[in-house]
Amino acid sequence: MEIMKKKSMMIILLFTFLSLISTSAQSPELPWALIPPSLARSSTLRIKKEDDGVYDKLLPYTAHYFPQQLDHFSYQPKSYTIFYQKYLTNLTFWARGRPIFVYTGNEGDIEWFAANTEFMMDIAPKFQALLVFIEHRFYGKSMPFGKKSYKSAETLGYLNSAQAMADYAILIRSLKKNLSSESSPVVVFGGSYGGMLAAWFRLKYPHIAIGALASSAPILQFDDIVPWSSFYDGVSQDFKDESLNCFDVIKRSWDELNMVSTKKGGISELNKTFRTCRGLKSVNSVRDWLWEAFVYTAMVDYPTNAKFIKPLPANPVKQMCRIIDGLPPAVGVLTKVFSAASLFYNYTGSQSCFDIGHETDTHGLNGWDWQACTEMVMPMTITNQSMFPPATYDYEQFGDRCMEKYGVRPRPHWITTEYGGYNIKQVLPRFGSNIIFSNGLRDPWSRGGVLHNLSPTIVALVTQKGAHHLDLRSATKQDPSWLKEQRKLEVKIIKSWIDKYYSDLI
Amino acid sequence: MEIMKKKSMMIILLFTFLSLISTSAQSPELPWALIPPSLARSSTLRIKKEDDGVYDKLLPYTAHYFPQQLDHFSYQPKSYTIFYQKYLTNLTFWARGRPIFVYTGNEGDIEWFAANTEFMMDIAPKFQALLVFIEHRFYGKSMPFGKKSYKSAETLGYLNSAQAMADYAILIRSLKKNLSSESSPVVVFGGSYGGMLAAWFRLKYPHIAIGALASSAPILQFDDIVPWSSFYDGVSQDFKDESLNCFDVIKRSWDELNMVSTKKGGISELNKTFRTCRGLKSVNSVRDWLWEAFVYTAMVDYPTNAKFIKPLPANPVKQMCRIIDGLPPAVGVLTKVFSAASLFYNYTGSQSCFDIGHETDTHGLNGWDWQACTEMVMPMTITNQSMFPPATYDYEQFGDRCMEKYGVRPRPHWITTEYGGYNIKQVLPRFGSNIIFSNGLRDPWSRGGVLHNLSPTIVALVTQKGAHHLDLRSATKQDPSWLKEQRKLEVKIIKSWIDKYYSDLI
Repeated sequence: MEIMKKKSMMIILLFTFLSLISTSAQSPELPWALIPPSLARSSTLRIKKEDDGVYDKLLPYTAHYFPQQLDHFSYQPKSYTIFYQKYLTNLTFWARGRPIFVYTGNEGDIEWFAANTEFMMDIAPKFQALLVFIEHRFYGKSMPFGKKSYKSAETLGYLNSAQAMADYAILIRSLKKNLSSESSPVVVFGGSYGGMLAAWFRLKYPHIAIGALASSAPILQFDDIVPWSSFYDGVSQDFKDESLNCFDVIKRSWDELNMVSTKKGGISELNKTFRTCRGLKSVNSVRDWLWEAFVYTAMVDYPTNAKFIKPLPANPVKQMCRIIDGLPPAVGVLTKVFSAASLFYNYTGSQSCFDIGHETDTHGLNGWDWQACTEMVMPMTITNQSMFPPATYDYEQFGDRCMEKYGVRPRPHWITTEYGGYNIKQVLPRFGSNIIFSNGLRDPWSRGGVLHNLSPTIVALVTQKGAHHLDLRSATKQDPSWLKEQRKLEVKIIKSWIDKYYSDLI
Repeated sequence: MEIMKKKSMMIILLFTFLSLISTSAQSPELPWALIPPSLARSSTLRIKKEDDGVYDKLLPYTAHYFPQQLDHFSYQPKSYTIFYQKYLTNLTFWARGRPIFVYTGNEGDIEWFAANTEFMMDIAPKFQALLVFIEHRFYGKSMPFGKKSYKSAETLGYLNSAQAMADYAILIRSLKKNLSSESSPVVVFGGSYGGMLAAWFRLKYPHIAIGALASSAPILQFDDIVPWSSFYDGVSQDFKDESLNCFDVIKRSWDELNMVSTKKGGISELNKTFRTCRGLKSVNSVRDWLWEAFVYTAMVDYPTNAKFIKPLPANPVKQMCRIIDGLPPAVGVLTKVFSAASLFYNYTGSQSCFDIGHETDTHGLNGWDWQACTEMVMPMTITNQSMFPPATYDYEQFGDRCMEKYGVRPRPHWITTEYGGYNIKQVLPRFGSNIIFSNGLRDPWSRGGVLHNLSPTIVALVTQKGAHHLDLRSATKQDPSWLKEQRKLEVKIIKSWIDKYYSDLI
């Protein structure tokens, strides 16, 4: 079972690409090679060793495929169509009746999330927990219409969060029954969109999950709950915090890029500066290449080296700014930002040139773009104070683009209608329990997250220096004490849920 | 605007007919004349005075039609189809910012529920509440496909509780926005299936409703949470409580009916005993006629006279048993049960003969039967201890019937997966708040209801002598003190939710 590298590398990028797409006239298409769903019911995972290090080990999970219904909320004969949903399990530490930890999969191969959520494995022995990672429908191998799953709105129409959560509910219930362990408490875990799903799952299915750890879950990034500029303000602030010069160089680079590209011999100059392998297709591809590097580096600005989106050193934003600040003033702005971006794209030093623009040239559709065009509407703007070029947001224009692309319009207020978000400080203190919202403030998504305790049992764990679902990553010897403390607290809180659950049973 | 009498009379019957259908080989079809949806955006209601007294006054509501989306949980182009959902409002007592009381409509014309939920009107002045009654999709005038709404599973597929609640969420949010009163607290009310929707709505949409009064809501009548014999045990107990002889006469009547019907001249004898107008079509129609009378009378065994399903005196079960017990021993069993059933069908004395079997001869489809065949699967059996003929329940057989009728199979475990129900005593004390489950123990549905407090804010109000959502009915001078007390407590609890809501805002 080979994992396609390009695909997995791009997964979390989708999350941010939304903003690129919605603020720019050019809509870069991300590569999205579809893997036909295997109907094999079970197989041991042998993850190919990838040289970018994303899957650099054999994952300790067994893969299964669960027969899932296409549409849980309608009853046409077609709604009953079965597809096979992939999920991974590890039973090493489990005993019947003991807890089940479920990762509510997000937009990508489930292996990728399993490989980057080793926190669950780290704490499993303490809880004697069964580990389950469930793949989100329409991602990875969980394709309801096989290779045709992304064909049009007729097929993609079934890709949404409510259907995904119903999948999880049904699968979990079935699993518990099959394991003869219906009294096992279930705790759900998730990061990013998966974190949103975990939190919402606890809110919508409290009878199935006793609690949720929702890491870096921007559940407030909808409608006008948080300022539309939050995300890019966050990215910019990360760089500004390191160095004003660094921030300033990046801020100036966009105009410089436009200027160079329009002058005679400019493209050739850019090819040289950006060490392209095959020559640039457009100046926009350079812009996107830089943009991605800064956005993702801000998101994964971890205090230790890591291999999440790309292999990166500890504190990569600081490292990028060191590169920029370390170059002599005479060096051009574009060379400076190229050098900084190279940290993101080439930290291992394996690349002698860059295939800028060519990666995004394939015409795969991608699931998150669809989700963003239907329910996951997160308006984003860029202000003058940002290090990115200013951008406005217009519902109508965004809707037109979605209509053109998919033949359907977004439902921009649906998420807040279905899951809430407004007045969360009034609503949740009087309703619900057992959710941890964890956020690291280096992560620009944290600005759309829950950053304050809402009740004694709906709590926010915020770290000043944390980044995108850092807490879900495997413990390492280099972890700073505040991270160890955060994870310890998470374990303590989860333990309290489980202890209460068992004592309620008696 | 004429209200069709037959239709409204049959509404709550559907709720019970499920059991008839599932335990007998004969599947009586209920009349269901479809009214084409009017697209008029607003009109004042003029309810025709009906001689059966169901709508015996002008309702003090204004009707509106809200453009609603067909499918909230999928994104095919077809999902965006608009239909017009009817709702009623009364703004007499309301001021901007004050509470909004919403009735979450169930299986029938919304006027019928408005006319029988006058409790909301009674308490509106105290709360300065806006009253809103929302019609359930696929009932009354809220037909997504007009006259073709009940055509097949292709159209009916969109009739289910999750879609209905999403309708309510969207409509309420839109209404508040249009009234510039987004901070108004919303309390939802409902009885029977509407009560289930009210409770589930509070659980699923706590950000939209601050609390729910769920009256006679059998949310535990699914899977094997309560014994399958509960409902008919309840009906039987009501009669047994009044008189053992009465119970016994009814219990013997079914065999007697079979016996008479098979003997020579038996049908003619039945025609005479049951005073049929046009002659019996089958002996089953007599059986159903009696069955309905006993079941519905048990459900509406109110302590005062009322005109809910039919005009009836106070304590109608007691009255029925008095009729049976009052007849000389020599009088035949069938004459006795006929006389008792006549109380139900002819309390006003307006009928000189009965059109038994002919009412159920029309071939309208009905919505509840569809819902029972898809998600609202409530298994029911009848034991030897009941006053009804014993019946078993078989998922497979029931599913086959649904498949044959609609081309789709039931999803018998969906309700408990989506809304919970199992271990409610463990789940809800740790999650959720602000629900009143009210039940009257004379109501056989109460056995599928929540009869114990689950937490300080999820409470059960149980009355020994109450019946099917009695508390939602208008206060009358004849109301017993325990009923006044129950309503007073409901007002007090609702007031506490609203007071807390406003104090949280400060």
